[in-house]
Amino acid sequence: MNTKKIGIYGLGRFGLFWADLLSQDFEVIGYNRTERDFRGITLGSREEVLSCNALFFCVSISSMKEVLQQCATHIGRDTVVFDTCSVKCYPAGLMQEMLPPETQIIATHPMFGPDSGRNGVAGLPLVFSPLQADEQTQGFWRDYFLSIGLDVLEMTPEEHDREAAVTQGITHVIGRVLGGLDLGPSRIGTLGYRKILEVVEQTCNDPYQLFMDLQHYNPYTHSMRLRLKESLEEVMRALEEADSAL
Amino acid sequence: MNTKKIGIYGLGRFGLFWADLLSQDFEVIGYNRTERDFRGITLGSREEVLSCNALFFCVSISSMKEVLQQCATHIGRDTVVFDTCSVKCYPAGLMQEMLPPETQIIATHPMFGPDSGRNGVAGLPLVFSPLQADEQTQGFWRDYFLSIGLDVLEMTPEEHDREAAVTQGITHVIGRVLGGLDLGPSRIGTLGYRKILEVVEQTCNDPYQLFMDLQHYNPYTHSMRLRLKESLEEVMRALEEADSAL
Repeated sequence: MNTKKIGIYGLGRFGLFWADLLSQDFEVIGYNRTERDFRGITLGSREEVLSCNALFFCVSISSMKEVLQQCATHIGRDTVVFDTCSVKCYPAGLMQEMLPPETQIIATHPMFGPDSGRNGVAGLPLVFSPLQADEQTQGFWRDYFLSIGLDVLEMTPEEHDREAAVTQGITHVIGRVLGGLDLGPSRIGTLGYRKILEVVEQTCNDPYQLFMDLQHYNPYTHSMRLRLKESLEEVMRALEEADSAL
Repeated sequence: MNTKKIGIYGLGRFGLFWADLLSQDFEVIGYNRTERDFRGITLGSREEVLSCNALFFCVSISSMKEVLQQCATHIGRDTVVFDTCSVKCYPAGLMQEMLPPETQIIATHPMFGPDSGRNGVAGLPLVFSPLQADEQTQGFWRDYFLSIGLDVLEMTPEEHDREAAVTQGITHVIGRVLGGLDLGPSRIGTLGYRKILEVVEQTCNDPYQLFMDLQHYNPYTHSMRLRLKESLEEVMRALEEADSAL
């Protein structure tokens, strides 16, 4: 067991999962704004959690600003602060702006959750963006994540968001658009159609708020959506032309 | 070996595959408008092929009308005529209109091809729509398709096209729309994104003409596309509102 103590701020679906995972190697305490059953996670006061050796914010993207406003002055002087949001530029900017300049900060995006990590996290990707962290701190955490089998992808928040606007962004927009059509299994469903249904199921299982946040707080999704719309219109136009030509 | 002789009219990618498959149980001869290497398929004259016991048209949807015009008067009196098009109302209507009223006609849609049937056709779906055929003829072919392991789905051309407009139609429109965006593999590609890439690859591998034909000759794709467009616009509108509210 490592001697570091880890605080998890926010015990939603992901926070609980993350707390479980890290408690295999660290002492972990959790804090949540509202109380309910947290399945055996040791709870601590807000102040205790904020002054652990490492603090992971597991809150929604859209609540990061308010949470940091409430927490910034209570975070321990030597506490290494992480976020775990699915966009990176926005929370990275907030943390750098709102936390004291000497605070060590590492932005992360663990690209998995209780569903995809159900049978272990080996091989799953974790985006790792040290913002303000010394070599030793970066090295410790990079090595730790590697040691539990994660595929640690070091990139800047900009690189992450630019790429995620396409990969995550398009997948979720397509999933939500098709989710609005009430598709269902079909006897004549091809393999491709079944993949489409899987995308719909997977994306529409996520909270709607996460979908909106992923789109709204990623600065690159807007242009992705415009390209998608243009491409759809182009395909539609070609088909309308063919229809009216005959 | 069955004593029936089968004619395959059109030796494109699917026609060759179909001829290969049927020649495991029947004597098969093929005809193609233009000559090239047909990989060991026995060729016959147009007249020979059109007067076999069973005749399968394996031509593009958009050429069915012209092909029937050229062939109708040469088809054998006892020849059972099948099409294999990926839409059903249009070729079914043409065959009923253009072939003699006593001709036995069964519309089919073998929902597979050389790729998906590479390792055998067992379990793959074949849509089966007897249009003008006596019980014995229907029974013979239904039993034969079942005997080689196909999942024989009996439905009317209307039922097929209505359902295919969604399953096949949406899959191909999404594939083509995303195909216009030059997506590629990504280090941070989620499982959902990889499924999206597979849909793009699969659909954009098919000839563009097949895509256009699937849409144009299925009477139900137009309203499917309108619903798709509306759903996209609704999602876009919700996102624009969220963007401008903050």
